[in-house]
Amino acid sequence: MLSKNQIKFITCLKQKKYRMQHGFFVVEGVKTIQELLQSKFVLHALYTTESFNIDAKDEILISETELKRISFLTTPNKALAVFRIPEPKSINRKGLIVALDAIRDPGNLGTIIRLCDWFGVTDLVCSKATVDCFNPKVIQATMGSIARVNINYVDLVDFLNEVTLPVFGAFMDGETVYTKKLLKEGVLVMGNEANGVSKEVEAIITEKISIPRFGNLQATESLNVATATAIFLSEFRRS
Amino acid sequence: MLSKNQIKFITCLKQKKYRMQHGFFVVEGVKTIQELLQSKFVLHALYTTESFNIDAKDEILISETELKRISFLTTPNKALAVFRIPEPKSINRKGLIVALDAIRDPGNLGTIIRLCDWFGVTDLVCSKATVDCFNPKVIQATMGSIARVNINYVDLVDFLNEVTLPVFGAFMDGETVYTKKLLKEGVLVMGNEANGVSKEVEAIITEKISIPRFGNLQATESLNVATATAIFLSEFRRS
Repeated sequence: MLSKNQIKFITCLKQKKYRMQHGFFVVEGVKTIQELLQSKFVLHALYTTESFNIDAKDEILISETELKRISFLTTPNKALAVFRIPEPKSINRKGLIVALDAIRDPGNLGTIIRLCDWFGVTDLVCSKATVDCFNPKVIQATMGSIARVNINYVDLVDFLNEVTLPVFGAFMDGETVYTKKLLKEGVLVMGNEANGVSKEVEAIITEKISIPRFGNLQATESLNVATATAIFLSEFRRS
Repeated sequence: MLSKNQIKFITCLKQKKYRMQHGFFVVEGVKTIQELLQSKFVLHALYTTESFNIDAKDEILISETELKRISFLTTPNKALAVFRIPEPKSINRKGLIVALDAIRDPGNLGTIIRLCDWFGVTDLVCSKATVDCFNPKVIQATMGSIARVNINYVDLVDFLNEVTLPVFGAFMDGETVYTKKLLKEGVLVMGNEANGVSKEVEAIITEKISIPRFGNLQATESLNVATATAIFLSEFRRS
């Protein structure tokens, strides 16, 4: 049986302000919860309609009606877990790093985290205007990859000024990524959904790259930022 | 002033059953509406808080409160238009065609339509179990590309059996797309988010392809279907 205080605590974690205040975030769905249970993330409480066979003190069996009351999903998926927000590790300034300049859509950030995991990018650096990676919609879209990518929120201009790696950035008028000489090391900067890379960040970028359009002249004016990131990461890794 | 019947008519178009019955679909947002006004799509009615300077008989000025009552979005974007669902053109069985086997997520379908537009894929073929392309969330994600890609819902097994092009399909155990010889013509089949390509469709696929994973062994088990489509289309076009 869930208490009013438990319900209030869980549902407040939908908002960044309360996640920051309490230091916890919510994960939904059996598969993602199981992945996170096997990760470095620390479980705070698991609310589930079917036992996970873990230490009984961490597991609270609830009814489907109760799950509906705490879930952020229209169709709740058997279990909801509260995990502690970890301290990020310091940024490993080697290899390929992805940097995000004010990505706002949670689905896009979640998809980019999953892409980093797939393409072996261990560090993701986000400007402070980027959506919080512990937002429930981000967690949902990462499909468990949140546990395997080190994410830091930084002043992006300072970070790019300090880093010694070459800095690549996605621009509509950049050099085509298919012929550009890509390196094994570097930072790939992806800009905001509506406005692209900000002026201050653009000034630091040394290598502007783009994905050529093959459609006719009336074709869509841009690609979604997550699909563009997919193509860029694929190009860095295949080279 | 909106009548009760107008509100009822617009909001019912959220459901596929009523879209099929009436033959209309809803588009929201000034930018997408403007793109569709310039396309082959036929406007039925435009409800807007600011005039578009089009033929006055097609335009109904409404208040923001009224827009909220008819909008499908949490934050309505100045205008909502109702367009007639067009008859799809017959499939052009040449060049590169994308075929979808039971894609269920509207955001994924919308993103794939936008990718087809970007990469000059004029025909998208969907199995009957694929989400309806006139679903408002699909329209939202296409960013206007819905007007430039010809979409047909077919029996996918029949279509693939009849087509004379080579049939490529995305599989976890396929040949790496980076070394595979890709052709300028062919059908690229992408499978369902959870289950991949169905057994019946798999039997017809002649070329199984995959995107190599570069992360460690615990990395995410798959890519999102829209990002995988982005990488495959990029590979077909760059070759």
